[in-house]
Amino acid sequence: MTDTTWQYENFERTGSAIGYRIVRKLDEVQSPFQKIEIFETTDWGNLMLIDGAVMLTSRDNFLYHEMMSHPALFTHPDPKHVVIIGGGDCGTLREVLKHEGVERAVQCDIDEQVTRMAEKWFPELCERNTDPRAQLLFDDGVAYMRNCAPGSVDIVIVDSTDPVGPAEGLFNRAFYESCFRALKDDGILVQQSESPLALLDLIREMRDEMAKAGFSALRTLPFPQPCYPTGWWSCTMARKRDAFDFREDAARGKRFPTLYYSAEVHRGALALPPFVAEALRA
Amino acid sequence: MTDTTWQYENFERTGSAIGYRIVRKLDEVQSPFQKIEIFETTDWGNLMLIDGAVMLTSRDNFLYHEMMSHPALFTHPDPKHVVIIGGGDCGTLREVLKHEGVERAVQCDIDEQVTRMAEKWFPELCERNTDPRAQLLFDDGVAYMRNCAPGSVDIVIVDSTDPVGPAEGLFNRAFYESCFRALKDDGILVQQSESPLALLDLIREMRDEMAKAGFSALRTLPFPQPCYPTGWWSCTMARKRDAFDFREDAARGKRFPTLYYSAEVHRGALALPPFVAEALRA
Repeated sequence: MTDTTWQYENFERTGSAIGYRIVRKLDEVQSPFQKIEIFETTDWGNLMLIDGAVMLTSRDNFLYHEMMSHPALFTHPDPKHVVIIGGGDCGTLREVLKHEGVERAVQCDIDEQVTRMAEKWFPELCERNTDPRAQLLFDDGVAYMRNCAPGSVDIVIVDSTDPVGPAEGLFNRAFYESCFRALKDDGILVQQSESPLALLDLIREMRDEMAKAGFSALRTLPFPQPCYPTGWWSCTMARKRDAFDFREDAARGKRFPTLYYSAEVHRGALALPPFVAEALRA
Repeated sequence: MTDTTWQYENFERTGSAIGYRIVRKLDEVQSPFQKIEIFETTDWGNLMLIDGAVMLTSRDNFLYHEMMSHPALFTHPDPKHVVIIGGGDCGTLREVLKHEGVERAVQCDIDEQVTRMAEKWFPELCERNTDPRAQLLFDDGVAYMRNCAPGSVDIVIVDSTDPVGPAEGLFNRAFYESCFRALKDDGILVQQSESPLALLDLIREMRDEMAKAGFSALRTLPFPQPCYPTGWWSCTMARKRDAFDFREDAARGKRFPTLYYSAEVHRGALALPPFVAEALRA
């Protein structure tokens, strides 16, 4: 395999790195917020970096997108109105719109260029963008949630980059309070919550902030995600009410295909490994 | 953090890489079989490389060692005699000997230097080496299994490097036939089986060879393992009889601590994600 190079991302916080064998750079844009680059890899399809950090690859993004959406949508009793904060690659939106009961899905990403690059290089993730139920906004997610009508939203999905740079404001009590207010009483907030092995401190901080904002029930679900630090990632769901009813029959009978998600995988993800459970109790 | 460097392992077969932030090299030995190196990392404790391939780190080896042992031992009705082929770091042996019912555990690694390095740099993994039920052999695992008395072993655990170099002979029908013969009728073979995302072909080949050797029931269990390609790994269990009874009550009531393994995690690992299940059916 000639003319390939290896490109690495060093994660300072975990002391580990992940890399890919690259064929060439396909595209690059400097938006007002960040630098977005697209590479062609030998084995992982296209690769998107934002400010040097791996966002997704064609091959493994299904893990993340399915786990950011279906567990929450099969926990909420009847999700109709979903808001996605971030999620500019549109992969989470695509999964959300597989649920026929969803009447409206708003995606609010601050950076329009992420979506433009996704349309160009990850068109399969954007195939639901023209669904009449979808609304794509390019705006500040913090302000969007602050201005949401109280009690108007069923599910908020925070599909953002890490808590540095543009996404920093999406990981604190003030933002979670906006989400709490915008959600109906049976609403659910779900957020990507970093590595359950190497970044447990960060998960704990997030959960603490969510609890301070009034959320009374929290669940962190681990899942594999090769392109993120340690290859093991998680999402955290927060409910206003202290009940986590998984609609397992609905998940089992779902009428759309998924690659990673299933009722059994969902059930499995709810069973935290002992060391994670202990760390989150502490 | 001055004076640290980043060291990467490029996985040609997956087109991806994993790296660590290194403080210094601690040790190195060239055995008759392979080159073993030990590094101090900033965040992962000590790191062992064999011929440049990451074998384990202090911090995350518990995932692998627990999943290579407890699922098989809590599936077999009454495991008394366990053979570990490879496993020279002694971490699997340690987990096996946590089971009080085990009367004899033989570890047969071809390379004594792996164990010597583990004793020096991963002493916590070797804490059961002096258990009177343990027997450490440094010999050819293929020959060991070929010469085993027929119907004498309850569980064979193949805890080897990848199917290149010294371990190549541990991934084919002839070896599996030796294991089949050595096992009692209710015996179980379990082997590390690579990445369920990037190396599904290899898992399929292994399973085919196991089936040709006479094993009639197979189960592949995925688990996170950050230090191996893609950070997502698996073990595959094979039984002579077509029944896979998980002793869930025993697992739930186990009297030793584990960090990753639990009855619920075991149950979760048995639920293969749809894309893996489909690939293994094909």
